[in-house]
Amino acid sequence: MSWWKILLGVLGGAVILAAGLLIGHFGISKTSTPNWVKELSQDVDEGFIQEFMQEVDTKKIEENLKILSKHPHMATTKGDEDLVKMILAQWSNQDFGLDEAKDERYNVYLSFPDKERPNNIQVLTENNLNIMTTRFTEENITSEQNDPEVVKPYAAYAPRGNPKGKLVYANQGKLSDFQYLADQSVPLNGTIAIVRYGGAGRATKAINAAKFGVAGVIVYTDPKDINDGNSEPHQTYPNSWYMPPSGVERGSYTEDFGDLLTPYYPAKDFTYRLNKTQINGIPPIPTQPIGFEDAKKLICELAGPKAPETWQGSLGCSYNFGPGFGPSGSFKDCDVQVNVFNYEEIKPSANVMGIIRGSVEPDRYVMYGNHRDSWVHGAIDPSSGTAVMLEITRILGTKLKQGKWRPRRSIIFGSWGAEEFSLIGSTEFAEEYYSKLRDRTVAYINVDISVFANATLRAQGTPPVQDVIFTAAKQVQTPSSPSLSVYDNWIRYANRSSSLYEKIIPQLGTLGAGSDYAPFLHYLGITCMDIAYTYDRQKTSARIYPAYHTAFDTFDYVAKFIDPGFTSHQMVVRTAGNVLLRLSDSLLLPLGPLNYWETLNAYYTTAENVIGSTLTAKNISLVPLKTAVEKYKKASEALKKTIEDLKDGSEMPLKVRMINDQLMLLERTFINHYAFPDKLYYSHVIWASRSSNVATFPGLADAYTKASESKLEDDWNLVRHHLTIAVQAVTSAALTLETAASI
Amino acid sequence: MSWWKILLGVLGGAVILAAGLLIGHFGISKTSTPNWVKELSQDVDEGFIQEFMQEVDTKKIEENLKILSKHPHMATTKGDEDLVKMILAQWSNQDFGLDEAKDERYNVYLSFPDKERPNNIQVLTENNLNIMTTRFTEENITSEQNDPEVVKPYAAYAPRGNPKGKLVYANQGKLSDFQYLADQSVPLNGTIAIVRYGGAGRATKAINAAKFGVAGVIVYTDPKDINDGNSEPHQTYPNSWYMPPSGVERGSYTEDFGDLLTPYYPAKDFTYRLNKTQINGIPPIPTQPIGFEDAKKLICELAGPKAPETWQGSLGCSYNFGPGFGPSGSFKDCDVQVNVFNYEEIKPSANVMGIIRGSVEPDRYVMYGNHRDSWVHGAIDPSSGTAVMLEITRILGTKLKQGKWRPRRSIIFGSWGAEEFSLIGSTEFAEEYYSKLRDRTVAYINVDISVFANATLRAQGTPPVQDVIFTAAKQVQTPSSPSLSVYDNWIRYANRSSSLYEKIIPQLGTLGAGSDYAPFLHYLGITCMDIAYTYDRQKTSARIYPAYHTAFDTFDYVAKFIDPGFTSHQMVVRTAGNVLLRLSDSLLLPLGPLNYWETLNAYYTTAENVIGSTLTAKNISLVPLKTAVEKYKKASEALKKTIEDLKDGSEMPLKVRMINDQLMLLERTFINHYAFPDKLYYSHVIWASRSSNVATFPGLADAYTKASESKLEDDWNLVRHHLTIAVQAVTSAALTLETAASI
Repeated sequence: MSWWKILLGVLGGAVILAAGLLIGHFGISKTSTPNWVKELSQDVDEGFIQEFMQEVDTKKIEENLKILSKHPHMATTKGDEDLVKMILAQWSNQDFGLDEAKDERYNVYLSFPDKERPNNIQVLTENNLNIMTTRFTEENITSEQNDPEVVKPYAAYAPRGNPKGKLVYANQGKLSDFQYLADQSVPLNGTIAIVRYGGAGRATKAINAAKFGVAGVIVYTDPKDINDGNSEPHQTYPNSWYMPPSGVERGSYTEDFGDLLTPYYPAKDFTYRLNKTQINGIPPIPTQPIGFEDAKKLICELAGPKAPETWQGSLGCSYNFGPGFGPSGSFKDCDVQVNVFNYEEIKPSANVMGIIRGSVEPDRYVMYGNHRDSWVHGAIDPSSGTAVMLEITRILGTKLKQGKWRPRRSIIFGSWGAEEFSLIGSTEFAEEYYSKLRDRTVAYINVDISVFANATLRAQGTPPVQDVIFTAAKQVQTPSSPSLSVYDNWIRYANRSSSLYEKIIPQLGTLGAGSDYAPFLHYLGITCMDIAYTYDRQKTSARIYPAYHTAFDTFDYVAKFIDPGFTSHQMVVRTAGNVLLRLSDSLLLPLGPLNYWETLNAYYTTAENVIGSTLTAKNISLVPLKTAVEKYKKASEALKKTIEDLKDGSEMPLKVRMINDQLMLLERTFINHYAFPDKLYYSHVIWASRSSNVATFPGLADAYTKASESKLEDDWNLVRHHLTIAVQAVTSAALTLETAASI
Repeated sequence: MSWWKILLGVLGGAVILAAGLLIGHFGISKTSTPNWVKELSQDVDEGFIQEFMQEVDTKKIEENLKILSKHPHMATTKGDEDLVKMILAQWSNQDFGLDEAKDERYNVYLSFPDKERPNNIQVLTENNLNIMTTRFTEENITSEQNDPEVVKPYAAYAPRGNPKGKLVYANQGKLSDFQYLADQSVPLNGTIAIVRYGGAGRATKAINAAKFGVAGVIVYTDPKDINDGNSEPHQTYPNSWYMPPSGVERGSYTEDFGDLLTPYYPAKDFTYRLNKTQINGIPPIPTQPIGFEDAKKLICELAGPKAPETWQGSLGCSYNFGPGFGPSGSFKDCDVQVNVFNYEEIKPSANVMGIIRGSVEPDRYVMYGNHRDSWVHGAIDPSSGTAVMLEITRILGTKLKQGKWRPRRSIIFGSWGAEEFSLIGSTEFAEEYYSKLRDRTVAYINVDISVFANATLRAQGTPPVQDVIFTAAKQVQTPSSPSLSVYDNWIRYANRSSSLYEKIIPQLGTLGAGSDYAPFLHYLGITCMDIAYTYDRQKTSARIYPAYHTAFDTFDYVAKFIDPGFTSHQMVVRTAGNVLLRLSDSLLLPLGPLNYWETLNAYYTTAENVIGSTLTAKNISLVPLKTAVEKYKKASEALKKTIEDLKDGSEMPLKVRMINDQLMLLERTFINHYAFPDKLYYSHVIWASRSSNVATFPGLADAYTKASESKLEDDWNLVRHHLTIAVQAVTSAALTLETAASI
């Protein structure tokens, strides 16, 4: 056979073999290769995140805010219900809506002022002649204040009544303030106390006052606390962002959160309701907030000794204790009467819920929410947050409808109702869906007020969210300089030295119970965060932005003073949206359990340094706590190593799910429903409310402070009890992070 | 070209093509086909289950039991510690051991009698002359009773003391029994009450007695209740299984479970302990159990009117109320003195834990446990159960070490300590590992006493375990007939008509708090079951097997009277092991959520029928409960359908996991830690303890009974509250079964 015939034969055979190889490999499917194999490894798409961020549109945000804040929309009013429809319509839109949207209603206990009889404060002579009445509502400066739907200032849940008495000035209405007055022999029984906002919770001021026999409370905002001392009209809105003299902070005067009549259960038709006399944590005596224009008239006339320096404000006069007015003024011998005509009503309040179904893990939820209800127009609180949420849902909804994206996990958006009355909508939701949410929620992102001011990012959260927020913040640019990231800018304003990373990092704040994350964090033990843009504290010491809860929190105020150009809003959309996408799309959850060790270790170290020797003297050892914290560190380091070893993405999907479950459920291990029997909802051993100054486990700290004051052995036993609770919580957390098939 | 050359060419080409096809298909791995694809679908292997069942060896079980019951092994004694070592050695054995085994110790609060001063009852004349003393311990019948390690009969946790007074007979020591005596004007103050076992919990008898001023309590076992009336030595052990006249039931006199000093926290070194005065639920007055030989002497001499017919027992005399003895007997004018010298001590008690790691889902646990500690030799209680557990671990351990089997999920075996003192070992374990176990445990299988008698299977559990127990029971044959399955035999003895299946099925019993499943069920909300062989109730009405908690519960007793040949033990090993393998190995968890509907519907129907009209009169509607139960049915039917559609096994593994999580967590949705603030640990809204006769939700039933007696509006509000709790629990359960990405 000639060589070319052999060559031809070999070549021919090779071609046929190659064809066979190709057909065999690609043409004949192996029965062992199901379709889902690729899908399972769906991971976050960095390109998509960039695309998302690029599409964030300041004009759309501005437009959202304009619509949202056009009318007052206090919970359950027409303005609120109109927004329910508007948001439902957006989330149901066929071009940019979500998979599912609906409104869910709860019948909740609310408090309103009487429209016919406006609350006020009167100055009455000995003959009961009224010689002064405070304003019924704010001055009409930009016409919006004239809207008939503007609710007149009131203290929600304060009881109706008309107590009359001598006026006293009680600083911030803290227990120590009233005690100080009593120690100075200022008679308090039957008086009316005027106190400034700050230092103590709204309801707490009146609760404290009542303990000293005070009959009524007036609360006002001091220009020192809100306006950096400025109080003249030319210094205030509309000439600056400062509160005008007639501005009044409305608010819910409650210590607890959730519907007050249905603790732990959703306020549905079937739900048992407490009798209103069983409600705790609301003012026991009539209480009314006023503006500093009116407060000045009252305070500057007060008789009695001058109050201490720390009690003095910026009304431009000496703040005296009282009781009653000075003999030289026009209010000589006058009493003050607090006229409150509030009434309570059970009304249906809606949450609007929107869902994007996860493709791979539909039973894992990333939640994102903000309340919808305001006190008045609420351009900042809460509409700046809602404007951000709607921009996120617009972009993601569009991608979804275009078939360009579907998250790995489900995303649940919530537009909560009646937050202003005490986080009611979110709490009722958390109660109704307790089991599902507890077992399936990866994290909750809250963006309430999205822009307090335009200086820097401010993020609060439990420690595991630190890394993902850092990652996002590094990817967002500030408008001031393309090379300056939100992260780099943030670190200039708020930073700390991290013992874990051995470097300076931005300061992630901690969560209290100030917004809708509270039920998710404290009751369900879900990893939570709250994201916003905020102040340069070098430039202002205002308690909060000055138009807060007044009729001046309007679109105009935002556009002129808070965020001209809406670039801070844009940065918040980008940062929060980036975090949301990482949480919903990442194969491995971007939560950092090791970060919790810094908190736990700081708590332990503080306990050891501040109260350790006293505890030793009481034969209480902190060694078990130290051991538990070390065990936690070891377990979280080991898990971190396991995760790093997995990073190639080709791992068995149930191994990934197992680790993700450990990460998701870590926060849950700190929940102990028996730890704080006297505190409604508070079950998180690390973040429960704390009165003590000792920055350690709140139960331990408060028990310690109580025992060290009372010296009672029963109280020291409570310290021992809370130390056990802390050790148990930290140990449980460590156990959950340890290898799964081991006990 | 000739035809054969063409043929050869075509054939050659075909061979080469085929080779290419084969190499291409099998030889070149697709990068998209990871190794774990096959592993993920690992399902239960029916062949392996048959193999397991075939290897169950009556001789090995008998051998186990002989060793386990050779010496008394009360919690923390040398006998107990020797068994800790023995079980640890077996579970660590290199040929048939588990992956991991260890002992875990808790320092728990126990109560013991004083070895030097045996507890007793004396009859004292007016001059304080002792004319009769009860036995210190049981008669030595089979030499085992003579073992120095036999603990003398006592009431654990009864306080020491020597109260003396006139004797009264108080039936079973129920509150109604003492009330009845009081109503008959029988003076109770300062008396000694003799009561029989049954009708009320051990501790409850003394707690009730103390409320009426009774100074001491004697508890005995009436031959009517334990011996079908037989009381003569020739009728009792060793001549039959009946309790000899000297037999005394020991026991823990506690109403609560878990270590009494450390509720909710593991009894570790660091744990805060209550002061013993803070313990509730134990006898406030000295209490001592005696045998019927001694009881007869006391009761048959009692003066006073004859007790009602239902109070009469089988001691062969008239049971009179007392107080004091009749004038014609030898005890005329005598008092009775209860001499109790118990002391309490904190001692280290061990659990022995053994683990088999799951191959696919190591973070899902199937638990199997039994206690190890006995009162005396404890051949039946608990060693019959431990003998079964050790036979299961021997067979599975062997397969494991031979590399022939590894479960899909992890299996955790527990040999609990100090169960007899109030389920202490299991409770401390549940407390220590609360978070892990709550989030990962699929089910807990308890086999305490494995064979009460050899008539029929008796299974108790929450409704979702019904199907898997039925499946297992159908696969196990009875020794009496190869064609008669354990299932078929069971249905003859205990059955019910199922509204769901519309046929007669065996009666799955409900779980109380009688063994170590209690903390897992009531505190963690884990699906639980308890499996045993038991009586033919046509043949005996004994409260329990007659040697229970006496020194006659020996190997000899078992081999002669309970299970000659050990075939009932074998059936229990096969049934429980079969269930265990199905739970640990099945791709889809064999738990039936629809079965819960029968319970929920029965609860609703009972409420409607029994208390519905009274509730309506109080303006309390059961409609929301009905709606919730219907919602549950709909959701569980839909899930059943989803599961049936999945059954081909080629589904996406995370979809399977999602459904399994729904099945696993269903039971958790019934947990409400705020539902029963006065009951330690009890949090399961469906299975919490109930005092009321109305067989519905326990909180609702008890609140109803209280309100209908007191007529107080506050109590009716408690009914409303518990109705809300029930509706919320059932609704939560339905929500967890509904499609995951929906709210």
